[in-house]
Amino acid sequence: MKIFKTKTEIRNYTRLRKLNGEICGFVPTMGYLHQGHLSLMDISITRSDFTVVSIFVNPMQFSPTEDLETYPVDIETDLNLLREKGVAAVFIPSVSEIYGESFQTQVSVTRISLPLCGASRGVSHFTGVSTVVLKLFNIINPDIAVFGKKDFQQLAVIKRMVKDLDLEVEIISGETVREKNGLAMSSRNSYLNANERKQAPVIQEALKEGKFFRLNTSTDSVSVEKHIINQIRSNAPDSRIDYIKCLDADTLEDTSPETDNILLAAAVFLGKTRLIDNIVFSVKSVEKS
Amino acid sequence: MKIFKTKTEIRNYTRLRKLNGEICGFVPTMGYLHQGHLSLMDISITRSDFTVVSIFVNPMQFSPTEDLETYPVDIETDLNLLREKGVAAVFIPSVSEIYGESFQTQVSVTRISLPLCGASRGVSHFTGVSTVVLKLFNIINPDIAVFGKKDFQQLAVIKRMVKDLDLEVEIISGETVREKNGLAMSSRNSYLNANERKQAPVIQEALKEGKFFRLNTSTDSVSVEKHIINQIRSNAPDSRIDYIKCLDADTLEDTSPETDNILLAAAVFLGKTRLIDNIVFSVKSVEKS
Repeated sequence: MKIFKTKTEIRNYTRLRKLNGEICGFVPTMGYLHQGHLSLMDISITRSDFTVVSIFVNPMQFSPTEDLETYPVDIETDLNLLREKGVAAVFIPSVSEIYGESFQTQVSVTRISLPLCGASRGVSHFTGVSTVVLKLFNIINPDIAVFGKKDFQQLAVIKRMVKDLDLEVEIISGETVREKNGLAMSSRNSYLNANERKQAPVIQEALKEGKFFRLNTSTDSVSVEKHIINQIRSNAPDSRIDYIKCLDADTLEDTSPETDNILLAAAVFLGKTRLIDNIVFSVKSVEKS
Repeated sequence: MKIFKTKTEIRNYTRLRKLNGEICGFVPTMGYLHQGHLSLMDISITRSDFTVVSIFVNPMQFSPTEDLETYPVDIETDLNLLREKGVAAVFIPSVSEIYGESFQTQVSVTRISLPLCGASRGVSHFTGVSTVVLKLFNIINPDIAVFGKKDFQQLAVIKRMVKDLDLEVEIISGETVREKNGLAMSSRNSYLNANERKQAPVIQEALKEGKFFRLNTSTDSVSVEKHIINQIRSNAPDSRIDYIKCLDADTLEDTSPETDNILLAAAVFLGKTRLIDNIVFSVKSVEKS
């Protein structure tokens, strides 16, 4: 497995393999890899001839009050996991390699970035995400790129950016991987203490309850949100709800009678740890379970 | 000469020629071509194997109070000029071809877009420019792209965007082409009546006076600006000054004792027509004329 630290090296590497007719798959990460990440690698490896993974904790997507300084890092374990997985190359740039002197360009996907994490973390969060992902696409020039559905809004932002900016990369989404108890895998789960970890699965359970409520009891988004909030408050006493939203999954705007796909999205603090999760379902399909 | 109206057609055309090892040159325009544009085509044709020109009056870079609706159009004459010049392909998309449904992505080069035309036309002007140019780069995938120095800030914005977003296109700048009387060529010169046209060359004359003043009399930017403003007011009685600025040409920020390259930039209304021009010079080089 190749390890590159500079843009020039990784660019030359992928260019050469692509010139040989090979399809390049790409999985951007912030490292501290878990089974969720590894399932994205699996998708990329299946769908391409060689997979490039980036590990870059992107300062541009953290607000000053967030956990940039404490974000978990374990490069050696990450590299071992990627080697075992069969990844072809890893790009581990420094911050100054990515953001050179006088850097000042921002890519914003305006409307989709506004609600949910855009509202709670600040709209600059997704500007940081779109900007760094566009840069990584331009450096690596992948044919396909894989993103996880746990970060549903991020996935929507990237898909919209690719369409709006006429990029040729195909965006593929990977299902959320969960612990046995239902907790969505996240690098930030490592922050949880034993008590918080016990309560964390309540988020996914409450979203499932919300889906059942939306399909069987009420189509009113506020009622659905209240139902989910009540579930979480009752069953996870140490939780503090950041947001619970019921939106149109295609536009991330309020639902209307025409809405087909519903997104139930949650951001919940357990202690100091902010966890997100979501559930997406069709209200028009026959399947209601 | 090929004429394409869809992104797919122009993309396939340039892809095929590039696959054959040919270097693609690109000149984006808003049409109503003059000698200034044609001199950019000459540069592209000299430096590449085939030149693509786009003609697209980009609504995203006009504010609601500006001249989008009246912007001059003469596609037939443009096509004849491009044919004579030896351009390989022209891309003339509709607005809906460029900005599809739910389009919402914005590319902003933050600091460089703030002063001068960013301050006077609104910062969204350059967001419109950067966004459409990035889209055109992504659609056409040129190896080089040529921009005129008359739009000095636009050139600076594009160069910065290319660097910040790790694009591989090389940006080449073309000198401003002038009428015999010194007036910088512009599609908007067609708006001028006889009286305004007579006064228009005063802008370039005043900038030259400003350069002389900066090199020989005072390094104080405000004094230089006042000197230029006085020249224009005295010699072009029907002018209304939008801005006259003396800035660091490399950063577009205020000059400092370390500044090497000076930009004197002017935006002046003659009647309803807004004209821009500039002059750039080194204060450290020996040559002081």
